[in-house]
Amino acid sequence: MKKIFVLNGPNLNLLGKRQPEIYGYETLADVAANCRKVGEEFSLDCDFRQSNHEGELVDWIHEAREDAAGIIINPGAYSHTSVAIYDALSAFEGPVIEVHISNTHKREAFRHHSYVSLRADGVIAGCGVEGYSLATRRMGGLVK
Amino acid sequence: MKKIFVLNGPNLNLLGKRQPEIYGYETLADVAANCRKVGEEFSLDCDFRQSNHEGELVDWIHEAREDAAGIIINPGAYSHTSVAIYDALSAFEGPVIEVHISNTHKREAFRHHSYVSLRADGVIAGCGVEGYSLATRRMGGLVK
Amino acid sequence: MKKIFVLNGPNLNLLGKRQPEIYGYETLADVAANCRKVGEEFSLDCDFRQSNHEGELVDWIHEAREDAAGIIINPGAYSHTSVAIYDALSAFEGPVIEVHISNTHKREAFRHHSYVSLRADGVIAGCGVEGYSLATRRMGGLVK
Amino acid sequence: MKKIFVLNGPNLNLLGKRQPEIYGYETLADVAANCRKVGEEFSLDCDFRQSNHEGELVDWIHEAREDAAGIIINPGAYSHTSVAIYDALSAFEGPVIEVHISNTHKREAFRHHSYVSLRADGVIAGCGVEGYSLATRRMGGLVK
Amino acid sequence: MKKIFVLNGPNLNLLGKRQPEIYGYETLADVAANCRKVGEEFSLDCDFRQSNHEGELVDWIHEAREDAAGIIINPGAYSHTSVAIYDALSAFEGPVIEVHISNTHKREAFRHHSYVSLRADGVIAGCGVEGYSLATRRMGGLVK
Amino acid sequence: MKKIFVLNGPNLNLLGKRQPEIYGYETLADVAANCRKVGEEFSLDCDFRQSNHEGELVDWIHEAREDAAGIIINPGAYSHTSVAIYDALSAFEGPVIEVHISNTHKREAFRHHSYVSLRADGVIAGCGVEGYSLATRRMGGLVK
Amino acid sequence: MKKIFVLNGPNLNLLGKRQPEIYGYETLADVAANCRKVGEEFSLDCDFRQSNHEGELVDWIHEAREDAAGIIINPGAYSHTSVAIYDALSAFEGPVIEVHISNTHKREAFRHHSYVSLRADGVIAGCGVEGYSLATRRMGGLVK
Amino acid sequence: MKKIFVLNGPNLNLLGKRQPEIYGYETLADVAANCRKVGEEFSLDCDFRQSNHEGELVDWIHEAREDAAGIIINPGAYSHTSVAIYDALSAFEGPVIEVHISNTHKREAFRHHSYVSLRADGVIAGCGVEGYSLATRRMGGLVK
Amino acid sequence: MKKIFVLNGPNLNLLGKRQPEIYGYETLADVAANCRKVGEEFSLDCDFRQSNHEGELVDWIHEAREDAAGIIINPGAYSHTSVAIYDALSAFEGPVIEVHISNTHKREAFRHHSYVSLRADGVIAGCGVEGYSLATRRMGGLVK
Amino acid sequence: MKKIFVLNGPNLNLLGKRQPEIYGYETLADVAANCRKVGEEFSLDCDFRQSNHEGELVDWIHEAREDAAGIIINPGAYSHTSVAIYDALSAFEGPVIEVHISNTHKREAFRHHSYVSLRADGVIAGCGVEGYSLATRRMGGLVK
Amino acid sequence: MKKIFVLNGPNLNLLGKRQPEIYGYETLADVAANCRKVGEEFSLDCDFRQSNHEGELVDWIHEAREDAAGIIINPGAYSHTSVAIYDALSAFEGPVIEVHISNTHKREAFRHHSYVSLRADGVIAGCGVEGYSLATRRMGGLVK
Amino acid sequence: MKKIFVLNGPNLNLLGKRQPEIYGYETLADVAANCRKVGEEFSLDCDFRQSNHEGELVDWIHEAREDAAGIIINPGAYSHTSVAIYDALSAFEGPVIEVHISNTHKREAFRHHSYVSLRADGVIAGCGVEGYSLATRRMGGLVK
Repeated sequence: MKKIFVLNGPNLNLLGKRQPEIYGYETLADVAANCRKVGEEFSLDCDFRQSNHEGELVDWIHEAREDAAGIIINPGAYSHTSVAIYDALSAFEGPVIEVHISNTHKREAFRHHSYVSLRADGVIAGCGVEGYSLATRRMGGLVK
Repeated sequence: MKKIFVLNGPNLNLLGKRQPEIYGYETLADVAANCRKVGEEFSLDCDFRQSNHEGELVDWIHEAREDAAGIIINPGAYSHTSVAIYDALSAFEGPVIEVHISNTHKREAFRHHSYVSLRADGVIAGCGVEGYSLATRRMGGLVK
Repeated sequence: MKKIFVLNGPNLNLLGKRQPEIYGYETLADVAANCRKVGEEFSLDCDFRQSNHEGELVDWIHEAREDAAGIIINPGAYSHTSVAIYDALSAFEGPVIEVHISNTHKREAFRHHSYVSLRADGVIAGCGVEGYSLATRRMGGLVK
Repeated sequence: MKKIFVLNGPNLNLLGKRQPEIYGYETLADVAANCRKVGEEFSLDCDFRQSNHEGELVDWIHEAREDAAGIIINPGAYSHTSVAIYDALSAFEGPVIEVHISNTHKREAFRHHSYVSLRADGVIAGCGVEGYSLATRRMGGLVK
Repeated sequence: MKKIFVLNGPNLNLLGKRQPEIYGYETLADVAANCRKVGEEFSLDCDFRQSNHEGELVDWIHEAREDAAGIIINPGAYSHTSVAIYDALSAFEGPVIEVHISNTHKREAFRHHSYVSLRADGVIAGCGVEGYSLATRRMGGLVK
Repeated sequence: MKKIFVLNGPNLNLLGKRQPEIYGYETLADVAANCRKVGEEFSLDCDFRQSNHEGELVDWIHEAREDAAGIIINPGAYSHTSVAIYDALSAFEGPVIEVHISNTHKREAFRHHSYVSLRADGVIAGCGVEGYSLATRRMGGLVK
Repeated sequence: MKKIFVLNGPNLNLLGKRQPEIYGYETLADVAANCRKVGEEFSLDCDFRQSNHEGELVDWIHEAREDAAGIIINPGAYSHTSVAIYDALSAFEGPVIEVHISNTHKREAFRHHSYVSLRADGVIAGCGVEGYSLATRRMGGLVK
Repeated sequence: MKKIFVLNGPNLNLLGKRQPEIYGYETLADVAANCRKVGEEFSLDCDFRQSNHEGELVDWIHEAREDAAGIIINPGAYSHTSVAIYDALSAFEGPVIEVHISNTHKREAFRHHSYVSLRADGVIAGCGVEGYSLATRRMGGLVK
Repeated sequence: MKKIFVLNGPNLNLLGKRQPEIYGYETLADVAANCRKVGEEFSLDCDFRQSNHEGELVDWIHEAREDAAGIIINPGAYSHTSVAIYDALSAFEGPVIEVHISNTHKREAFRHHSYVSLRADGVIAGCGVEGYSLATRRMGGLVK
Repeated sequence: MKKIFVLNGPNLNLLGKRQPEIYGYETLADVAANCRKVGEEFSLDCDFRQSNHEGELVDWIHEAREDAAGIIINPGAYSHTSVAIYDALSAFEGPVIEVHISNTHKREAFRHHSYVSLRADGVIAGCGVEGYSLATRRMGGLVK
Repeated sequence: MKKIFVLNGPNLNLLGKRQPEIYGYETLADVAANCRKVGEEFSLDCDFRQSNHEGELVDWIHEAREDAAGIIINPGAYSHTSVAIYDALSAFEGPVIEVHISNTHKREAFRHHSYVSLRADGVIAGCGVEGYSLATRRMGGLVK
Repeated sequence: MKKIFVLNGPNLNLLGKRQPEIYGYETLADVAANCRKVGEEFSLDCDFRQSNHEGELVDWIHEAREDAAGIIINPGAYSHTSVAIYDALSAFEGPVIEVHISNTHKREAFRHHSYVSLRADGVIAGCGVEGYSLATRRMGGLVK
């Protein structure tokens, strides 16, 4: 079984608690559980984490260089502002899938650009929390 | 069984024949076949079409207003230039998933903006032809 | 009686069927009928057409060079993207009136620029379908 | 009979006296007379005014809140520079039709944007002084 | 007791009469009364004025050079367009506090820039009509 | 007594120690003390904090969702760069007042835009450390 | 003797009273006197005026159409914002010389563009109040 | 003898009929004849076509993948707007020469950028219809 | 008698020979002669030069540091492109007057910005060759 | 026999010596020889020159006013930066053909704009050194 | 011996481990050792640190206010995004040298701007890890 | 001993004579002497030159292709405007180090971009004239 990291950026700890009419009622714990279940189908062991700290996300991506075959990342707001995360991901050699719960292209202009997309292999946006399952499924094909 | 339209824009008829090192060896017919197979899992009947003509894509989207529960669309180059397709999709009431085989955000600047993304519910890019399967799967959840 | 062309671009075939709260309940056929009636007041024979195909609109404008004394055109989405239609209109010598049912200046930024306005003699926007009558009336004064 | 205001911005007092080859030989008084005639057809009493002062135009629009059912306005140069007039019109609840004698889209770039268009219901440009008649006619339909 | 000027730009005469759900039910007269009351706490005599005319506001600011220890100004729409008011304020040597009832940064892009902010010592926006009291209080500290 | 959070971003711990000719001689501790005093007038219990870490500010805003009736925030440099803080504040339901000690509009161009202003109810800039008192006073009116 | 108009825009009434280290100690009355003296050398009768009101400047330019052989104008802040004055000057057929006391190109970016320069025959900036004499001298050559 | 395609975009069917003072009196048929004559010198068989339809031009470029050794293309207005044609040409492996009859760099700003130029090997503009002969001659050297 | 340099940039050697309808029939030699005559009135000895070489103009400005009390410069095309000349002038301590024969603000956009204007004390444009006399006259006042 | 100038800008003296895989093995002398040969076919006497000095190119263009019937110019890097050369060419009355060996539109963004193209009659880019022959051939047609 | 801080931003802990063909085989520990050695030559005690956390870098710069005579900083990705670090450095009074291992000007456009460069006294980029030695050497001259 | 070229652009001949409070009292001759001394440490023979002529700098860079192992260049103002120098340096195969005495990033916006930086291996700015020594030292490591 191969390990992958599923990393979540700022404010995603609030999932399911904030604006449920938009983000739904599933919490990040629910998403993690579902991710792990889909991962198992593809012999992937999902290491699911969340941080509001840009530096901690950078640290984890460095950790992934040793420990993970691929990275699924929902960088939240740091998608749009963090060159540091982009650089960290560029130093990671496995596949990277970027996930956004909402369709960022329909929101404010500053969400239309993502540094992470410049490095990601695949980008899945606007598919709700199901985006994580789709990403895991795609990762299954890439790291086998 | 619900019908969905899977529409493909200009140059996608060349899939599998052009730059296979980038786009792989699967042809659009292979993609259609696979799409239909995944569709069946979700009781979706995939009506798979391709055109190099912007106007024909608009005509088909109008047709979908009567005949389809959802639209998966890879608008190809028209993503970046066609307000007409965007307007047609805006007049369609069901879910719309936009697919790009490559990660358009890593390519030329003029591919970073997509009019279709302003209307699409979900956007899947850079997942290769598997993007169609993921989109069909997502559509399965949305139109059930 | 002089012939004028009243040309309609993409998605206008949906008029009256889509978002009636915005566009009203009159169909394009109703508009054509009304246009013809106003035209008669001014001895104008209105040749009313619609196409979703940019190339077909170009063809018709070429045809107008032989057959029409003036052109009323609602280019729809092609207003904002079609240099080809602009060039075709530039090769037409009679008067050109551009019509938009909604006030495009109050909508998305990409609708604020119209290539057709660079050629049109008059522009009427945001007057609903009555804009066609006003345009016909204006045309009556210009081609008499 | 309903009263409407027909307001004219800076330099329009020169109409018919300046560059007649462009603007024609009709003076603003002629336009007012014609406007009133068309207004009568629609039971509209046209209160026709002109000022070179931005503040006076703002005052008149405030006055219209009490006295007028609709406003036809040719803001002249203030179209492009006056947020104050835009704000005043936004505080007026009836319909607003913006008129420009020439087609501003064919002139200098700074004339392509109009603050007033962000509030106007309809915009009529490039129809010469007949634009006032068309606007009055449209107003007739809106305030009846 | 020191005199300060409290100047109000275009459309503020409508306060309390227009869109009360946004701007509340207090009129400019109410604001003036409250301003004077708070002013008294700080030994300030508030000379409260409003004009829709840019030139008149410039005249008043010149007058303040002789008569006022400080200026509180809500320039309304002229914030965004008037270099003349900016220049006049630059020739005034006492403190200047700019007030906006709404938070202009959440509104249209053209309201995000204020020439007056380039000169003002303090800027208070989005605090409703209470912004005037806060400004008066601040002025109290500055001119004592 | 209601609790509010008064949050301070990077470098504000240096207040009173750095460039006193600009920022004055009051330290952040002095500001906190004064804030608490004004807060008491309005039955507000001010929880006053400072951090140089973007992630910690996000954490505290999340904490405010449970514990605070309102947030006064001087985001310092993160005003201009942090979408993460903007998103966190958007998930907070009470009133938010943004404070800047200096008038950011008179400084470098990159300080003219604040993500926080897109969410804040009120913005107070350039009123020195008294800005905190004014903000507390305003908060008093909003959360009572 | 030919009459010319020497028009001055907002804040120029403060000349000699404000920032004398920059603008010198000569008042606008001194400038007028000197202008008239130079004018006499060239048989020009200088009608020297100042207004803070954009509309009044427009009125005077219209008046010049009847009464003046040329216009010297220091539009002050309206140089940068007034399309109305530009339009009025465009309707004037004699020569126009624009004067700025300071070199506007060395000041804030928004002073680098002048609508009046788009119409003026000559532009003299940064020559202090002597710019008026130079302009009068130039006018002498043009209207003789 | 090698076949090459000489493709012509929208409005070029009007050549020789429209604005002869600019474009001359030669029709597209004349150009084709001349092209074929020059082609023969270089053992090139010129397949000369014109369409107003973007999609048809895409179709023909696909056809060229099988049938042509090189493409000479005058994309007309589609130069500036068609990513689809650019993509089609990118999938063609032989040499591509772009021709414009007029010098597009001297015309409107929107004609200064050509998507086709991003793919073309050579670009010949402003040489009138002789540009086709020069392109054919160049093609002769490239495909021999 | 004080020496000043009157420097002329590229293409000014053609004065009077090229487009006389625009630039008049006076040659650069005529201008020099006239300049010297006006200079004498002010006890200025005009050293009049022209070069098409940017480097030579830089050399001459360095020379002026030793030999000249002031510089009048018509930098021609180098106004818009030469930072080197701007830097050289910045190392010159006397007054600098920039002259343009035509009104550059009415010409192509790339002529609206002048590096030299960022250093010049005065700028005189659009006064024809008389601009040199006016500049000499102004210089007379500055270096006396 | 008519004389034409074939002018070459900076770095073209290195032709054939630098990056031959891109620019080929032909030197500028080879190009000159070939140019002269083609010129003879059209009774043109090619005066072929190269300089790294902008001013020298300006001088030569002035010389062409007397001595040459047309100018073929490869301005090299000065295409993108020299207004001086543009102005010199504007003072030349014969035909001007601009040549670039590589297709500048496929290179860095700063090579996409050429001042010379604003004056040139024809532009030939990306045709390798054969571009000179094509230009000479075109010149043959223009100056006969 | 004077203490200086040598601060390193995100991802620099990977030095020597990531893309050695670009960054070489020296690790950050090697760089630190070398830095200390050069420092000793100049009686500088180098306190060498690295963090992926923006806030920690801010903390350290504050610490330097008490403990360090100068700061050498390689801010990595935070160069381009951190106003907080810029503000912290602005509150530090000693010399600051910015180091980048690669030449950031040859990389992506978003690396061309550095907030830190707005404060740094010197900037050394593209000199590989030797840049640290050069910076230390320069610091030696500045703090002695 | 290897030869390197140390090239200096416009205005650097004034070093030590102009604004010594900024640039110090060392002249370019002093810098050359020091450069040679440091060069000797690394067995480098420094050929030190200065020119105000862009073309001469291009000539020298061509000369370096034959004669020099590396180039240190302070392009002065030509950094920001000369594509010709950039192209010449691109045809040079050895290492290139760019030096600026001041920190150009803290000066006017037009100094923030350097064409030379697009080619240079290393860039050293703001280290005063010591930047030349540092560059020579770095060159020593590169060409050994």
